[in-house]
Amino acid sequence: MKDEVAYLGPRGTFTHEATKALFPEEGFVYTPCDSIPDVLTAVGKDQFSYGVVPIENAIEGSVTLTLDWLIHHVQVPISGELIYPIAQHLMIHPLHKDLPLAKVERVLSHPQAVAQCRGYLRDHLPNARITYVDSTADAARKIRDQGSKPWVAIGPFMAHQLYGLHVVAESIQDYPHNFTRFIVVGREWAHPRAPKEHDKTSLLISLPSDYPGALHRVLQSFAKGTINLSRIESRPTKKKLGTYHFLIDTEIKGDHPSLHKALTDVASWGCHVRQLGSYPCYHYQNIKEIEVDKGSSEAYNRR
Amino acid sequence: MKDEVAYLGPRGTFTHEATKALFPEEGFVYTPCDSIPDVLTAVGKDQFSYGVVPIENAIEGSVTLTLDWLIHHVQVPISGELIYPIAQHLMIHPLHKDLPLAKVERVLSHPQAVAQCRGYLRDHLPNARITYVDSTADAARKIRDQGSKPWVAIGPFMAHQLYGLHVVAESIQDYPHNFTRFIVVGREWAHPRAPKEHDKTSLLISLPSDYPGALHRVLQSFAKGTINLSRIESRPTKKKLGTYHFLIDTEIKGDHPSLHKALTDVASWGCHVRQLGSYPCYHYQNIKEIEVDKGSSEAYNRR
Repeated sequence: MKDEVAYLGPRGTFTHEATKALFPEEGFVYTPCDSIPDVLTAVGKDQFSYGVVPIENAIEGSVTLTLDWLIHHVQVPISGELIYPIAQHLMIHPLHKDLPLAKVERVLSHPQAVAQCRGYLRDHLPNARITYVDSTADAARKIRDQGSKPWVAIGPFMAHQLYGLHVVAESIQDYPHNFTRFIVVGREWAHPRAPKEHDKTSLLISLPSDYPGALHRVLQSFAKGTINLSRIESRPTKKKLGTYHFLIDTEIKGDHPSLHKALTDVASWGCHVRQLGSYPCYHYQNIKEIEVDKGSSEAYNRR
Repeated sequence: MKDEVAYLGPRGTFTHEATKALFPEEGFVYTPCDSIPDVLTAVGKDQFSYGVVPIENAIEGSVTLTLDWLIHHVQVPISGELIYPIAQHLMIHPLHKDLPLAKVERVLSHPQAVAQCRGYLRDHLPNARITYVDSTADAARKIRDQGSKPWVAIGPFMAHQLYGLHVVAESIQDYPHNFTRFIVVGREWAHPRAPKEHDKTSLLISLPSDYPGALHRVLQSFAKGTINLSRIESRPTKKKLGTYHFLIDTEIKGDHPSLHKALTDVASWGCHVRQLGSYPCYHYQNIKEIEVDKGSSEAYNRR
């Protein structure tokens, strides 16, 4: 029986692409869910073995909905991570594949995708009207359904495949180094073929009070053990303005003696520590190389 | 001549309420703007003396659009702060003021306001359909315009005044201690009547590289000077995933010798430091008391 993977849908989005890269199709069944809370809750209730959601984008920053659900609503461990390149493509109905850009009347996409391509749109489609839709996949679907209109969509490569559109221009995003970190939640996990980059442990640390210098003391405990922190992010406790939980990512395994020592230190003066997961991290580049060697799907070959 | 204040519109929102509390009407003219970037850019170009935008909510966390514009796009100083209570009210057209809640067919509001009242809606209006609109003021306006429909809006007290609606239920938000921090940007500023809570200096610190423990060293510099930090927040540099600017709020004046010493220390090992502003902080409670003493507007008396 194949393991089931829930992901933030709909089909044809970057999360769908990331899910395919993380879980090779021959061993897994994918199910799109309507929202990030839906994915996390369903995996928490054991309705799926794994879930895939975005947690951070290089331009936009944290996906706070993911962080807040992991902190406040579910107890499901993070079991893997993928750093995935975000490339936006301009797509048109095949009927219009030779249409000059100047004749395009409307651009459809998700607000975030449009924001990532502002420079391109200003230079190449200054007169087209922007219409915001719920997802990049939704934009592609609408273009397919409205074949007669001189409209374009912005979205991931997979959307063009899924909805049979023609790619007018590739990688039109303004920032060339845009990446999104996706996490796997649920059971223990490792990519069956690709080599991992490193291990990571994510921690949620709640300070005992508005203790001056408390965060400094937490960081001191990590520095003493020469534990590298790759990220620190504050989120409101939702109880009182100015009180925060800290999410800290460490580049070390969860059962490492140095981490144990640092956390014992931190807990000894009243901090509450919760381990959100200890897991392997992957970069899409490494997965792609493995899959291309195997002569796998078109999506991989194109990248 | 009255000074001009730009604020995040439309009229009848929490930002409008906060603007009225910060700038007494007799001395200032208010102008609503369409977006946070619009307010900050207009003040940066000296088209207005002051601007008011939200920067953090106790439940939702940072308003990242405000942070990112202050970091990347404008050089306008923060010159004041107001902590303002967020109370959501249920409002109906006066024609329907005696309608039982069970007969309400639709609830209109901004997604964030709806999210803040989930518990109330589940308990009192389980069968009403939710319709999302652009702002709480927009919801109130639509209720006024569609007098014949058994619909309600969720929004601030001011929206009910502005659109002549009847308040069905007050303070229906799930979290009783919900506050939003609003900032004033532009010229040097102090409330003409109310006492300030304390001074604050906001700093943007960019680490020289992914130097392990760099943030720890920054915090150490502050701890040595016993400077209290009220907040620390990371935002992506937008250049490379995993690289961040840190926004640090200190409870000290910008020209204090201890702060000068700490910042010299931080800069000496390669950090870039930018002062985003040094300014007085107010709590709405204190402004309200002053205004009620003066027998000021109905909005104040009602609270």
